Amino acid sequence: MDHRPQLSVKNGIADYIEWLSQYGASPEGGVTRLLYTKAWMDAQLAVKSEMSSLGFETSFDDVGNVYGKLSGSQSSADIIMTGSHIDTVVNGGKYDGAYGVLAGMLALKQLKDTYGTPKKTLEVVSLCEEEGSRFPLTYWGSGNVTGTFALGDAAEPSDGAGVSLQAAMLENGFGKGAYRPARRTDISAFIEIHIEQGLTLERSGADIGVVTSIAGQKRYLVTLEGECNHAGTTSMKWRKDPLVTSSRIIQELVMRAGRQPEELRLTCGKMNVEPNMPNVIPSRVQFSIDIRHQEQEVLKEFHDELVSVIRGISDEKGIRAVIDEYMSIEPVPMDQTLKAAALQTAAENRISCEEIVSGAGHDAQMIGRRFPACMLFVPSQGGISHSPREFTSAKQLDIGVRVLTDLLYKLAY
Amino acid sequence: MDHRPQLSVKNGIADYIEWLSQYGASPEGGVTRLLYTKAWMDAQLAVKSEMSSLGFETSFDDVGNVYGKLSGSQSSADIIMTGSHIDTVVNGGKYDGAYGVLAGMLALKQLKDTYGTPKKTLEVVSLCEEEGSRFPLTYWGSGNVTGTFALGDAAEPSDGAGVSLQAAMLENGFGKGAYRPARRTDISAFIEIHIEQGLTLERSGADIGVVTSIAGQKRYLVTLEGECNHAGTTSMKWRKDPLVTSSRIIQELVMRAGRQPEELRLTCGKMNVEPNMPNVIPSRVQFSIDIRHQEQEVLKEFHDELVSVIRGISDEKGIRAVIDEYMSIEPVPMDQTLKAAALQTAAENRISCEEIVSGAGHDAQMIGRRFPACMLFVPSQGGISHSPREFTSAKQLDIGVRVLTDLLYKLAY
Repeated sequence: MDHRPQLSVKNGIADYIEWLSQYGASPEGGVTRLLYTKAWMDAQLAVKSEMSSLGFETSFDDVGNVYGKLSGSQSSADIIMTGSHIDTVVNGGKYDGAYGVLAGMLALKQLKDTYGTPKKTLEVVSLCEEEGSRFPLTYWGSGNVTGTFALGDAAEPSDGAGVSLQAAMLENGFGKGAYRPARRTDISAFIEIHIEQGLTLERSGADIGVVTSIAGQKRYLVTLEGECNHAGTTSMKWRKDPLVTSSRIIQELVMRAGRQPEELRLTCGKMNVEPNMPNVIPSRVQFSIDIRHQEQEVLKEFHDELVSVIRGISDEKGIRAVIDEYMSIEPVPMDQTLKAAALQTAAENRISCEEIVSGAGHDAQMIGRRFPACMLFVPSQGGISHSPREFTSAKQLDIGVRVLTDLLYKLAY
Repeated sequence: MDHRPQLSVKNGIADYIEWLSQYGASPEGGVTRLLYTKAWMDAQLAVKSEMSSLGFETSFDDVGNVYGKLSGSQSSADIIMTGSHIDTVVNGGKYDGAYGVLAGMLALKQLKDTYGTPKKTLEVVSLCEEEGSRFPLTYWGSGNVTGTFALGDAAEPSDGAGVSLQAAMLENGFGKGAYRPARRTDISAFIEIHIEQGLTLERSGADIGVVTSIAGQKRYLVTLEGECNHAGTTSMKWRKDPLVTSSRIIQELVMRAGRQPEELRLTCGKMNVEPNMPNVIPSRVQFSIDIRHQEQEVLKEFHDELVSVIRGISDEKGIRAVIDEYMSIEPVPMDQTLKAAALQTAAENRISCEEIVSGAGHDAQMIGRRFPACMLFVPSQGGISHSPREFTSAKQLDIGVRVLTDLLYKLAY
């Protein structure tokens, strides 16, 4: 594959997204770019090459993040950064992540062409990994930027084929000091633009969402062990049926989630039943619970409630319950000053805009823990994401680029 | 393997069961004898050979059922038959089916040795198939005896490897007229003795259960289609979550099953969730429902209730529901005269005995639709069945053989 873009920037953001979606295109019309695979490497090289041709100083860091820089006239230690990630889930959409990278490139190009050298240095970053789709780890790109992760953390995680993150990284030429370290300490603002992946903007009709905070989340794997038995010969009163018990737990938890202040989102997305036969009372049911809220206090209190509901219902039915909280991420509020500047920028452009909580995790969440960060959302058609059906219209993508460009101008010029 | 039994009948029923369990012994200590496999054929030949050595006239029929006959002095068209099946589930127990065949053989042997030629002809049958574990079809043995099935029905069903029932049957020498047709019209009584596979006798302490009726059953596969979406970005109020909906349906159905007269048994044993990921609201959930009751009227009414509950809850939530009733078997009451004779026999022997509904299906259910039939149960330790852990003590097995022998005496001498 030719690493030089086949469409020129003049065609605008929608065509730019089509161009990048060639790298790792899936037969179903989606994109698969898993960290440190050939499709991913081809895409990062193509992005870097395109950044060069747009006139930015480009560089890799030692985990494979790609930067394009417009050096400022005043300071070099006070960087205004924009960007997102280019990795995808398996057969994901063209917009998730890619939009933020390409919109940042277009914004910097336009600022350079219109206003010349900025006061503060502007950078656009194509982060290497956010989705956690190949290795059991997320935010490898932004986590190395903030120092949350270090190279040594690559030793353990392995992909489905048993290849370690470290081996995959080395194979691509990263992780051995050939490039500068990923850790940054010089970021004064990070702006990430992204598709919403939800229905809020589409339903309200707003063109831009300004994120107030990225929800925290906890994930659990609940295992209920009952007593396997014959469906025909076991009296209802002697059953220890973990599927009936899990049904009652899910009903109770969904009802209690609905009582929380503002919205607590609760999802049971995964459930496995053993032995999973129509005429056998199950012995064992495992199911996941994912809870999200923008306030840590609410998450903490709901955690206690969740544990007590599961224990209470299971004990009553003689079912053994094991609750494994395998993920806990605190909410990250966006920077107030950046948020206000984003709202003002939209208002000045007479673009309909609303404040929104991000229920999904993003690189801005990782970076926002260390540096001032904010996020802009554009609508997602039908709220669909992580799917070849992911779509945002060219007009809506353009509006996003315009707000991003003007916001970066406000911050850097 | 030597087809001659390695243990002699004088060792009693428990040793006899150990002997037959060699054929198709599984590494886990269970038995796997699937219809028309080598292990199954070896076992049928061994049973036939053992029947001969006990002094019975033996024969195959054209589907592979094996008969041992003690011809009566009075009539040849008024057969008293006992027996069960020798096929098993994968890694099943030693007792299920086998006990009924071997107990029948011991009973006839004892009657012959003690009382000589019966008035009515006595037969013991080792039916070829009851479990439906290899082909998607149950009661191939007894169904051919009653004429419910005919040879032509073997053309369609195939096993997991794509081998048709017909091909497997022909390969073993059956289905081509080498033996007499399986269809019988001359049975005046069929008595099947079997392990209970439930906890009723163990909990009550009775040694013998006399079956009053074999429960009817209906099985359903319910498919709920909702809307796949992101767990973090989709507001609770806009979700169409088929897993939450199925939980509510299961709760409601279990509650309503509990309201039925006597006990309606309802089991959801199987559930598959798509795409089955912790952070994705499921698009689709499929689950099975198995309902059993001894009265057809109750099953019919509950069917209507079940459909209305599923439709009502799904409609309310905007979920598309498809209900596939893929199995419907009517209850079969056991013959009143035979049942009374069985109860009387137990009482005469001062054996503790109770009337019991069979929640599991049995050959006596198929045969009982055409000929007078009844069943005797012995206790199952822990109610466990279809497992290497299936167990009934030698003492309890012996008590069963004694009641069966005396009942056959009452009927045939």
